[in-house]
Amino acid sequence: MRITAICEQAVRLEGAVANAVVSFRDHTVSLVAVVSDQIRDGRPVAGIGFNSIGRFAQSGILRERLIPRVLDANPDELLDAAGQLDPARIAGVALQNEKPGGHGDRAGAVAALELAVWDLNAKLADLPSGAYIAQRLESTPLANGAPTYAAGGYYYPEDSTARLKDELCSYRDLGYTAFKIKIGGASLAQDLDRIETAIEVAGDPGKVAVDANGRFDFDAAVTYGNALAKYNLRWFEEAGDPLDFALQAELAACYEGALATGENLFSSADSRNLLRYAGLRHDRDVLQMDPGLSYGLTEYLATLAAAETAGFARSQCIPHGGHLINLHIVTGLGLGGCEAYPGVFQPFGGFSSGCALVNGNVTAGDAPGWGLEQKDSLAPLIAELVA
Amino acid sequence: MRITAICEQAVRLEGAVANAVVSFRDHTVSLVAVVSDQIRDGRPVAGIGFNSIGRFAQSGILRERLIPRVLDANPDELLDAAGQLDPARIAGVALQNEKPGGHGDRAGAVAALELAVWDLNAKLADLPSGAYIAQRLESTPLANGAPTYAAGGYYYPEDSTARLKDELCSYRDLGYTAFKIKIGGASLAQDLDRIETAIEVAGDPGKVAVDANGRFDFDAAVTYGNALAKYNLRWFEEAGDPLDFALQAELAACYEGALATGENLFSSADSRNLLRYAGLRHDRDVLQMDPGLSYGLTEYLATLAAAETAGFARSQCIPHGGHLINLHIVTGLGLGGCEAYPGVFQPFGGFSSGCALVNGNVTAGDAPGWGLEQKDSLAPLIAELVA
Repeated sequence: MRITAICEQAVRLEGAVANAVVSFRDHTVSLVAVVSDQIRDGRPVAGIGFNSIGRFAQSGILRERLIPRVLDANPDELLDAAGQLDPARIAGVALQNEKPGGHGDRAGAVAALELAVWDLNAKLADLPSGAYIAQRLESTPLANGAPTYAAGGYYYPEDSTARLKDELCSYRDLGYTAFKIKIGGASLAQDLDRIETAIEVAGDPGKVAVDANGRFDFDAAVTYGNALAKYNLRWFEEAGDPLDFALQAELAACYEGALATGENLFSSADSRNLLRYAGLRHDRDVLQMDPGLSYGLTEYLATLAAAETAGFARSQCIPHGGHLINLHIVTGLGLGGCEAYPGVFQPFGGFSSGCALVNGNVTAGDAPGWGLEQKDSLAPLIAELVA
Repeated sequence: MRITAICEQAVRLEGAVANAVVSFRDHTVSLVAVVSDQIRDGRPVAGIGFNSIGRFAQSGILRERLIPRVLDANPDELLDAAGQLDPARIAGVALQNEKPGGHGDRAGAVAALELAVWDLNAKLADLPSGAYIAQRLESTPLANGAPTYAAGGYYYPEDSTARLKDELCSYRDLGYTAFKIKIGGASLAQDLDRIETAIEVAGDPGKVAVDANGRFDFDAAVTYGNALAKYNLRWFEEAGDPLDFALQAELAACYEGALATGENLFSSADSRNLLRYAGLRHDRDVLQMDPGLSYGLTEYLATLAAAETAGFARSQCIPHGGHLINLHIVTGLGLGGCEAYPGVFQPFGGFSSGCALVNGNVTAGDAPGWGLEQKDSLAPLIAELVA
């Protein structure tokens, strides 16, 4: 088995939304294809991956560093004992001569490539990636799909609680029963109005999470924590800078409800520090590391192992990134749930017509691999990439 | 005052050296020019910067994200109250719509740009950057140049202690009195031979530092620590993964000599975690954060402030990266010393003919800015970049 080509294309996200810190107007994502010499239905089988959502395409790092290393390697060094492409070995070769530390853009670049290899292997096994992952890793998959919350409630130039209510009701109409909205981009009073609107739509504060996207200093985090306490929300996400473990620990000491963080930590080394120093409580807090931003599934498994060693259950792992790749990973590994962005981040956000949403749970469908070709918005981009 | 253009060129490093973890054969550096509308001697004044040494050029991030943002900004937003280009504001604009966390490649990309602005400002003030920095930041510069150690002792395909001795003697002949060599890329016994060779050349173990480049697990770090203790070396650098603060703290608890680390932490947020959790001892340990890898001088000042708040003296701050930019920063801020790579990492490593090496101290010369145009190997690349 050989890789015959690796292609990358930067794709611009559609929709002009903003959280408390950034606007996504100019955000891009790297779509990657790993093309093999294996033929099915008269065509070479290609694995497809991308580096999740919320950062940027990594065309430079992929084209200048990672892809040449993989294509220049001895092809036998890319295979496992069974002769299949080995995602871990390929990620290792892609990182040859890269120093430790500095887990940022590079982590997303490797992830897009590594996740494409998982897609390829699942397609060759003729299995949806969730089932393939469960089989290969001997994990217990979720039987009825992934509990999925609809993430939205961004700030828009023309904003109001009426607009927010319409937005969340539209998600409820789609079948979502749990929601997440942004906080910190308006006054506390306005944010509390937004939260009460969300609770009204959800019918249960335990179905509403809030996300500050790391914007608060310690005083603001505690002010919000005190104001949020009475609601018993599902979780309060990323109050402060993602690396400010001291702030996180101090907040955990005074806010009783669940806290969530981890989406902006891009390696198991960073995640281990979070687990060691941030005062997270393994009876309630939520870990949101995203494989697509952090070197892919191999590295995510190391992060997951560290979390389990620290006493966290898989049910507390709910990755950032609402798209098909994470839906399969959550389902296959038996994690706590998945995110969805029904309205935004196209063409990558959301699922495909082969996925079903029943009682707030999303099933990943029967298509082999991540099933990205089944997503109408992605299919033409993939066809162009592997043409 | 206006920026009229920002140019970037990836430049390949010369020389095929290796440390315990990586080979530098394919390493590249981004050379950046910020061209202004200010005319001196009939030509527009351009500021030059680069993203230090040891990681990679960041052409993609600079050209796709950072440079367009700065060129698209309202030019008045890039100026300070005095109407000069403000490095902090320019770095802020370059990072617009970038999320917090993930301090890796992006940190080097911003640094090359931000350091070019410092060069431009110093040239407009007709001052060497060291003097300009001291004046602008009201710091006490080093009066007699920067104490500078020669870093080398990499592993070569055909290696021997005789070769190492020749190498270090050649540095001694140049006037260097202190040295750093790599460890961890050979057996412990071979490494001890290498260390004894270095001590023999230096004439004093307090003039010899060793660098494991993050390769050891805890057991190996302690094994080396126990074997090194008897020598009273200058420092033992980066024993374990740069983010493994627990390993660092455990090593500090059992190794009495000085430890050094920080070159692979690329933000003040990461550095604050090191200062909080890694058990570093402010009466002896050495901090090596490198402005050129970590968002530039503005961010380095935040890191330096955090170190001083934690009880470290500026004399304990000895940045990674032996080149003209860090020589000026060390001199201007009154830090503990500078690194030099007399034999390797051309065209960026080392200093210029305007710099003098006297009693192990390097003076930065009288050229305005970083003086990069005075370095024979860089001058033609800069001329081509701004042509």
